[in-house]
Amino acid sequence: MGPTSRLEAFSDGVFAIAITLLILEIKVPPAGVPGELGPALARLWPSYLAFIASFATIGVMWINHHRLFALIQRNDEGLVALNLLLLLGVTWVPFPTALLAEHLLGPDQRIAGMMYSATFLVLALIFNLLWRHARRSGLVVQHVHVDSITRQYAMGPLLYAGTLAVAALSATACLIVSAVIAIYFALPPRLWQR
Amino acid sequence: MGPTSRLEAFSDGVFAIAITLLILEIKVPPAGVPGELGPALARLWPSYLAFIASFATIGVMWINHHRLFALIQRNDEGLVALNLLLLLGVTWVPFPTALLAEHLLGPDQRIAGMMYSATFLVLALIFNLLWRHARRSGLVVQHVHVDSITRQYAMGPLLYAGTLAVAALSATACLIVSAVIAIYFALPPRLWQR
Amino acid sequence: MGPTSRLEAFSDGVFAIAITLLILEIKVPPAGVPGELGPALARLWPSYLAFIASFATIGVMWINHHRLFALIQRNDEGLVALNLLLLLGVTWVPFPTALLAEHLLGPDQRIAGMMYSATFLVLALIFNLLWRHARRSGLVVQHVHVDSITRQYAMGPLLYAGTLAVAALSATACLIVSAVIAIYFALPPRLWQR
Amino acid sequence: MGPTSRLEAFSDGVFAIAITLLILEIKVPPAGVPGELGPALARLWPSYLAFIASFATIGVMWINHHRLFALIQRNDEGLVALNLLLLLGVTWVPFPTALLAEHLLGPDQRIAGMMYSATFLVLALIFNLLWRHARRSGLVVQHVHVDSITRQYAMGPLLYAGTLAVAALSATACLIVSAVIAIYFALPPRLWQR
Repeated sequence: MGPTSRLEAFSDGVFAIAITLLILEIKVPPAGVPGELGPALARLWPSYLAFIASFATIGVMWINHHRLFALIQRNDEGLVALNLLLLLGVTWVPFPTALLAEHLLGPDQRIAGMMYSATFLVLALIFNLLWRHARRSGLVVQHVHVDSITRQYAMGPLLYAGTLAVAALSATACLIVSAVIAIYFALPPRLWQR
Repeated sequence: MGPTSRLEAFSDGVFAIAITLLILEIKVPPAGVPGELGPALARLWPSYLAFIASFATIGVMWINHHRLFALIQRNDEGLVALNLLLLLGVTWVPFPTALLAEHLLGPDQRIAGMMYSATFLVLALIFNLLWRHARRSGLVVQHVHVDSITRQYAMGPLLYAGTLAVAALSATACLIVSAVIAIYFALPPRLWQR
Repeated sequence: MGPTSRLEAFSDGVFAIAITLLILEIKVPPAGVPGELGPALARLWPSYLAFIASFATIGVMWINHHRLFALIQRNDEGLVALNLLLLLGVTWVPFPTALLAEHLLGPDQRIAGMMYSATFLVLALIFNLLWRHARRSGLVVQHVHVDSITRQYAMGPLLYAGTLAVAALSATACLIVSAVIAIYFALPPRLWQR
Repeated sequence: MGPTSRLEAFSDGVFAIAITLLILEIKVPPAGVPGELGPALARLWPSYLAFIASFATIGVMWINHHRLFALIQRNDEGLVALNLLLLLGVTWVPFPTALLAEHLLGPDQRIAGMMYSATFLVLALIFNLLWRHARRSGLVVQHVHVDSITRQYAMGPLLYAGTLAVAALSATACLIVSAVIAIYFALPPRLWQR
């Protein structure tokens, strides 16, 4: 057991629960008149879309947490505190996800979309803070990926600020852009090596 | 800690939560007139049946995940991504389970049953994709069980496609067949050795 | 990592989630007229009592799972299947707990109490099955506690059958007896050594 | 795997689930007339405040659990029982959190605030009991931090008794004081060395 092992176990638990709670937001249509269930299930597409986009984003955040802590060999008080702040953001995600699914076709969809994007913007900032703290405090091992990660992460806040601007136009577009950004962060950091 | 240990810990968390959330779908009958509780509990049998079938299926998927990763010694980016896709399917299961419990006796039971079976068909396909990727990328150790697993898994999509056809006739039959297929996949792979 | 480590990790997850979900059954009284909250909180005592009794029982089952698997050195297919059956029982507990809290003061309290006790009777039987299987299949190490555990566990089904009889008289008495039995199983097995 | 490793894994699971369930208490405002969502989200501030204060407190309790068990090398029956009592308190937290969020602006806010503070007072007492038991039973390694932790923890019950008094005046003030105390316990124990 390395010195960051319980930090990783607790974080794995929080990521796993937050990602699984997302499904509770999709409400089962009640039994009713014959032939109603098919259309009712089709009308739930905003919930499916929000579920998939948030699952992808939390899943990819977990992949990145995994990548970072493979390079972080020791922890200190600051790392524990920043990691807790990151987990605060992760546990928050089911709320804007449910909010966006509820309001995606409503009159206030843009407010819901902006709240959704703002969540991921803040999370991208915390990821940068945590990684910079770990590098400055000498918690990170020497590795060819370290600079690539720094470069890829610097893009995060810019990309999510862009998503926030997209959300001011259309909540559906913001959801789709969020899923695409998740794929960007799923890509291995070696692609950003010079 | 082996190189796939955090992947396994995160997956264990998601499987454990998805399997435990199933119970939230069984709603407690409210207190009312004397003598009502017994019949009310009896009328919940579709919920009990759906709970047991989904518990068995998720539980057996966990057993299979456990078996595969005992043979997978290293991970790569593709394995992490396919594992995340598998977990997306696992977290989805509580929704079609609740849907089927709600509609098992209703007029649209076959749509609910087909959604339930389609979920497990997709999961069986992802299991095959993940295992084939691991074999082709040389992540799997030499072991007498490797070919038996490949053979057993190739049956999965066929069996669940059959369940989908059963669901088009009767949702209750589809639930029972699903529980039987779970037992098939619980059986040890050595039975499929030639 | 010993050969039963993932089985333990998955089980720990299920126990931890089932024990934490119990709190969701206690419903917050809505804001209303001044001075109403105190009496409303007091009227929730059946929920508090059911929460504590079920928490104690699941917690003590976890302690016993922990004790057993400290003595079980290897797993086999049968152990994995019986452990899954045990976890099916554990994830079921939140349902009879919520049922008993809802009906503890209602006209059908005895049916709710019998369902609650029957759950723990079945769990005690599964614990015995699992332990006997592990001993017969040679999965258990030689240890001075092995016989004491066998002796203590043999009492389980008898005690819970007694609780079932108590439930047929009073659901409140059955809850209190369940909490007392939890303390009995929390006691270390060396007390049952001859 | 050290001898307290499963105790830590189970505790990590319970902490992770309790901290993640907090988000379920924040209810999504339903879609309605245009322009309603912004004000509706603003009116949810008691829920956000309660979420953040409880997240901080559970998170910091996890940090402290982590710190204690880094110094606790062995477990005994008493430690397991006291740890279970601690986890009972942790799983209870989502209930007073939801209660306080619901009643923060209502007429009975002080009762809700006192229930919230009493929860953390009891948790502070259990932390002291667990730590004293571990020290007296010789489960703790020699370390420069041991006395500092004892000194810092002795303050816990006093601080939360003070919060209880504050709650008798204002529930909002009690929430803010609770968040500040969380920061106090997040500080490393070396600050309390003489």
